[in-house]
Amino acid sequence: MSETQSGSRPAEPFDAVDIIRTKRDRGTLSPEQIDWTIDAYTRGAIAEEQMAALNMAILLNGMDRQEISRWTAAMIASGERMDFSSLRGASGERKVTADKHSTGGVGDKITLPLAPLVAVFGVAVPQLSGRGLGHTGGTLDKLEAIPGWRASLSNQEMMRQLSEVGAVICAAGAGLAPADKKLYALRDVTGTVESIELIASSIMSKKIAEGTGSLVLDVKVGSGAFMKDQARARELAETMVALGKDAGVNTVALLTNMDTPLGLTAGNAIEVQESVEVLAGGGPEDVVELTIRLAEEMLAAAGVRGADPAAALKDGRAMDVWRRMIFAQGGDPDAALPVARESEVVYAPADGVLVRLDALAVGVAAWRLGAGRARREDQVQPGAGVRMHAKPGALVRAGEPLMTLLTDSGEKFSRAKEALADAVVIAPEGSRPDSRLIIDRIA
Amino acid sequence: MSETQSGSRPAEPFDAVDIIRTKRDRGTLSPEQIDWTIDAYTRGAIAEEQMAALNMAILLNGMDRQEISRWTAAMIASGERMDFSSLRGASGERKVTADKHSTGGVGDKITLPLAPLVAVFGVAVPQLSGRGLGHTGGTLDKLEAIPGWRASLSNQEMMRQLSEVGAVICAAGAGLAPADKKLYALRDVTGTVESIELIASSIMSKKIAEGTGSLVLDVKVGSGAFMKDQARARELAETMVALGKDAGVNTVALLTNMDTPLGLTAGNAIEVQESVEVLAGGGPEDVVELTIRLAEEMLAAAGVRGADPAAALKDGRAMDVWRRMIFAQGGDPDAALPVARESEVVYAPADGVLVRLDALAVGVAAWRLGAGRARREDQVQPGAGVRMHAKPGALVRAGEPLMTLLTDSGEKFSRAKEALADAVVIAPEGSRPDSRLIIDRIA
Repeated sequence: MSETQSGSRPAEPFDAVDIIRTKRDRGTLSPEQIDWTIDAYTRGAIAEEQMAALNMAILLNGMDRQEISRWTAAMIASGERMDFSSLRGASGERKVTADKHSTGGVGDKITLPLAPLVAVFGVAVPQLSGRGLGHTGGTLDKLEAIPGWRASLSNQEMMRQLSEVGAVICAAGAGLAPADKKLYALRDVTGTVESIELIASSIMSKKIAEGTGSLVLDVKVGSGAFMKDQARARELAETMVALGKDAGVNTVALLTNMDTPLGLTAGNAIEVQESVEVLAGGGPEDVVELTIRLAEEMLAAAGVRGADPAAALKDGRAMDVWRRMIFAQGGDPDAALPVARESEVVYAPADGVLVRLDALAVGVAAWRLGAGRARREDQVQPGAGVRMHAKPGALVRAGEPLMTLLTDSGEKFSRAKEALADAVVIAPEGSRPDSRLIIDRIA
Repeated sequence: MSETQSGSRPAEPFDAVDIIRTKRDRGTLSPEQIDWTIDAYTRGAIAEEQMAALNMAILLNGMDRQEISRWTAAMIASGERMDFSSLRGASGERKVTADKHSTGGVGDKITLPLAPLVAVFGVAVPQLSGRGLGHTGGTLDKLEAIPGWRASLSNQEMMRQLSEVGAVICAAGAGLAPADKKLYALRDVTGTVESIELIASSIMSKKIAEGTGSLVLDVKVGSGAFMKDQARARELAETMVALGKDAGVNTVALLTNMDTPLGLTAGNAIEVQESVEVLAGGGPEDVVELTIRLAEEMLAAAGVRGADPAAALKDGRAMDVWRRMIFAQGGDPDAALPVARESEVVYAPADGVLVRLDALAVGVAAWRLGAGRARREDQVQPGAGVRMHAKPGALVRAGEPLMTLLTDSGEKFSRAKEALADAVVIAPEGSRPDSRLIIDRIA
């Protein structure tokens, strides 16, 4: 009989149950305990059920700034880290990088015009993106609507494109923050997604591992966002900005409204089309405003002065980078985009001012029409989605088209319309919706 | 693409993540949700990591009385339930049953004299017991020190012994509350043992499944007990009494002191020997006091009036039942008990009054000497343990023997003595320890 574990495995320096108990009893984990926790979990020495209990204790009892910062650093250390410090431009000049991350919303196609727009000013934009799950779309799903375009690049292809074109939007490699991938899958099935600490460290570990020099965060708040509540969105933004600072990445966050979809489209091909309109100097006002504002933040964070992104949208310079960026990844920027086989129009039920067009409802409708996926293995319909004809603030007349629903499978219309049942509120003339797009800036 | 899970498995009525979120957000689980949770976990439809997250949320956010009661009922329903309602005595008379449960302490051999003592008065005592793990001993380990005695009985053997002898102490079958077995193993590795709600439902689900008509709980409080703190011990006792009431089992709890070991022995064979002394009308005062008090409570709970258990210890009636009980399970009540191969004496360091003899320290020392096990598969040494020569309140002289350490493996002495380093406190003459054995009664 022995009190200590015997056997052939090397002894672990900590015990998972002690660590769980510490957090359960509102204690603070030491840097060494955190490093061991992430490492041991990644290699399977901490079991899934132990990590689940620890995550619930973290969600309910919190972590302080030093703990979150170390937790993030440990997740970065679990995998490879990209390095753009040797990046040079076409004429051999040193290039700085800037990155943007959005916490996800409905109709959020901003990355598409933004990456080429920032690249116009000599800043390299390595935008590693994901696919959508649930009611928010994924940037890669949108771009895959372009015939020939491919999301997967080797590191070498990515570096060459950054050097020659200046912007790249592609899939993140599996080697970045593997601990985060494993942990996210666990949180998803154990009710522990909604922890500010775990969300912030998940996002920031990936972004820091991607090796950017500066980072602008677009933290969405509202019905269509992950954070419905402004206080929690602000806390998330502040936590992420602090984590960026701790890791030496110049980080700024904007808090932006997601009660209403961004722009007039929610889908894949239709969002690419709208992005191209913005790159051509047109497009919906809110998409243009947020694109320019985020470009200004990214350029300032990267140390570029005197740039005028609004002009670069108007005069075709951003469009030029876009076309080269799409072309470099096998896409044809002039090809016709896929069109949904069937459509159905939703009409305004009354005269008045449209004061609400609910982002979550539109997101769920687009998802149900085939624009999104319920399971990772699902295919999306590139032509599916919701095209909006009016946004909050607009005067509408009963019987006028409000939205067009697009899908390849007509049987999907009824469930999409169910999602939209309470999406629209029309108020008497003279009413005004609260429509501030950019709520706050946190630096 | 579909929002709902497809596949060949029948649909589950609830979603584990919803249930975890409800408890995480301080909500109340419905009876149907609780029934499903226990059933789905037992058959593997709720994963270990999901149950771990739920347990941590329960530990931190609690359950109300209705939830705990339903949780307990669902664990009982996960397996078989014993039924003693048809039990008859040797002359065909109907027999009622009474059961005792101790939350575990050091030197707690009370079940050994208690079961035969209560049986003297015609009450059947089906005492389903376990083996020890860690510093508290197990009743079966103690009895297995008796040559020939066997812990495993079939249900039929158990019923016959109850009918003919009136008392049985044996191993609980694997069919009782299997959900509790699975859940306890999970709690053990996920830092979720220390939840009043989960402890209470674990104990009571087993005891109620054992089918007793009345139950007396001995809830230990102090250094050698699971509950160090009187307020939490009281809360546990109250919760268990309420659960018993909800299940129709007449339940009473005593809160008893476990700052000091019970009696003068902590081990296996030496505790059997001390129990036999009590059954012979002698034995240490505290063991006699608690045995008689618990017998009175069990007899009262079973509806027996006018019994005098103190007399039944003195006049040999309890000893008679003990001998028949041991014999019925293959044991020889007259056989010599195993004796440890080596011994070492611990001496009093000063003159004065022994005011503290720490139960946890003595328990850990006995464990390290070989009386207990660290892992389920370990064997115990029947002769090992700690024999005490003085208890708090006694006047001692420097150099006088205080304890004798017993083991088959002499290399164990040094770590046992380390455990005892701060176990003993001797104060100036005239000092008095706080030595109330029975702290409170909760009914």
